[in-house]
Amino acid sequence: MEIRLAKSYGFCFGVKRAIEIAEDSKNATTMGPLIHNNEEINRLKENFNVKTANGMNEIGDAKRIIIRTHGITKEDLERLKKSNKEIIDATCPFVTKPQEIVKKMSEEGYKIVIFGDEKHPEVRGVKSYAKNGAIVILSTKELEGEKLGAKVAIVSQTTRKVEEFKKVVSYLVERVPEVRVFNTICNATFENQDAARELSQEADVMIVIGGRNSSNTKQLLTISQENCKDSYLIEREDELNRSWFEGKKVCGVTAGASTPDWIIDRVISKIREITL
Amino acid sequence: MEIRLAKSYGFCFGVKRAIEIAEDSKNATTMGPLIHNNEEINRLKENFNVKTANGMNEIGDAKRIIIRTHGITKEDLERLKKSNKEIIDATCPFVTKPQEIVKKMSEEGYKIVIFGDEKHPEVRGVKSYAKNGAIVILSTKELEGEKLGAKVAIVSQTTRKVEEFKKVVSYLVERVPEVRVFNTICNATFENQDAARELSQEADVMIVIGGRNSSNTKQLLTISQENCKDSYLIEREDELNRSWFEGKKVCGVTAGASTPDWIIDRVISKIREITL
Repeated sequence: MEIRLAKSYGFCFGVKRAIEIAEDSKNATTMGPLIHNNEEINRLKENFNVKTANGMNEIGDAKRIIIRTHGITKEDLERLKKSNKEIIDATCPFVTKPQEIVKKMSEEGYKIVIFGDEKHPEVRGVKSYAKNGAIVILSTKELEGEKLGAKVAIVSQTTRKVEEFKKVVSYLVERVPEVRVFNTICNATFENQDAARELSQEADVMIVIGGRNSSNTKQLLTISQENCKDSYLIEREDELNRSWFEGKKVCGVTAGASTPDWIIDRVISKIREITL
Repeated sequence: MEIRLAKSYGFCFGVKRAIEIAEDSKNATTMGPLIHNNEEINRLKENFNVKTANGMNEIGDAKRIIIRTHGITKEDLERLKKSNKEIIDATCPFVTKPQEIVKKMSEEGYKIVIFGDEKHPEVRGVKSYAKNGAIVILSTKELEGEKLGAKVAIVSQTTRKVEEFKKVVSYLVERVPEVRVFNTICNATFENQDAARELSQEADVMIVIGGRNSSNTKQLLTISQENCKDSYLIEREDELNRSWFEGKKVCGVTAGASTPDWIIDRVISKIREITL
């Protein structure tokens, strides 16, 4: 069986940057998991003693706090600043951007719509910058019945699919006199998605490596499934199942933006081993 | 044969307003045809001595100038102001709006895209307010190869179809970080279009009454043709052809926003007469 790697996969700029920051900040504590990849977080803990607090209440007497790539809420940031701890900001600049946009647009009186998953930490952070709240949606259905007013500003979670974002924009354009559209979907997301789309058309089995809590990884799985029904999301190589590869000719491999190369290497080795 | 009138048709707010202004301005001269309906323009000439100048060079020594519903260019307006003539503004407020938007957005550094027909007087007027020019397009094809930059503001000619406008917006959203969308398509346009769509699904022959130079009338024809292949655009009742109605059961009638009721009445009478 042939194994083909997607043309673009894995670590994005923001994740690489965050990991470098963490490696340079020994003994620090991250506010929320630094990235959505447990394996990499364990490595940072073992090699650099970078610990993870899963919320303000777990921070305790930690002195150096790293803000996760997905960012945190405005309120948490203010509390951290008041507590006189050293703050090291590893928020991805592509996430800081929608935070700033939402702050400015809500101050200018725009109704804020965020296209994204309201439970995702990135979205919770971005939403917290809206002066008078924001409507968080994943489909136009959720906009039905909402009072949208005369001017709406819309941003997207950085890891969504642009096709879905455009559908929401179209819905708004038909109903709202002014719609200010900020396409905050990040390029790395686009590139990994495009590559997954292409590869999944050639493959008869697709392995998507990444965290189950990673939004961009889940999008890669959805895209792969559209073209290749035998697509699987795994976090570690020991989740691979020999039966997935029986009778297959081409195995495509891709990985989410928070999946380190060393995990991808292990997965590929393991696929080779069990299909020998 | 049954004759059915569309639920919404004919005169819009801006046209009604312009005609009232013209009737109150005896002996004035309109800058460009007041509305896109020759019959109504002839009536205003005969009953109120309101003449039509087809450009600055035809104005001569006219003292009172009425600005047409579609508006005029910024340059022509400035020239008129300098000439000390009395200016009576019959520009439709829904056209003044995109003029103001284009002025403001171009001053704020947005690249301007106008969705409309570059030869139409409304669009020529709106475009003239763009500080550094504007891209005028009717399809995304015309945007290919354009340098769009980081922020684009888009307005629409008031009489276009929203489906086409949304396609252009989608194209921009995928390529430009900030797209500021002003849906300047007017409600009367929507309503007449929706009613034409509905009626043309029931009718086996459709008569669309309006000027051949009228953008919104042409849209009504296109929409009618989508559902009823026997759709005809006429300006006057004497263009009706008996053969159009042979073997038909339901004749739908609609009219553009600049078509006066008296013409519609004449057309309906004539249809009754020739199908008796």
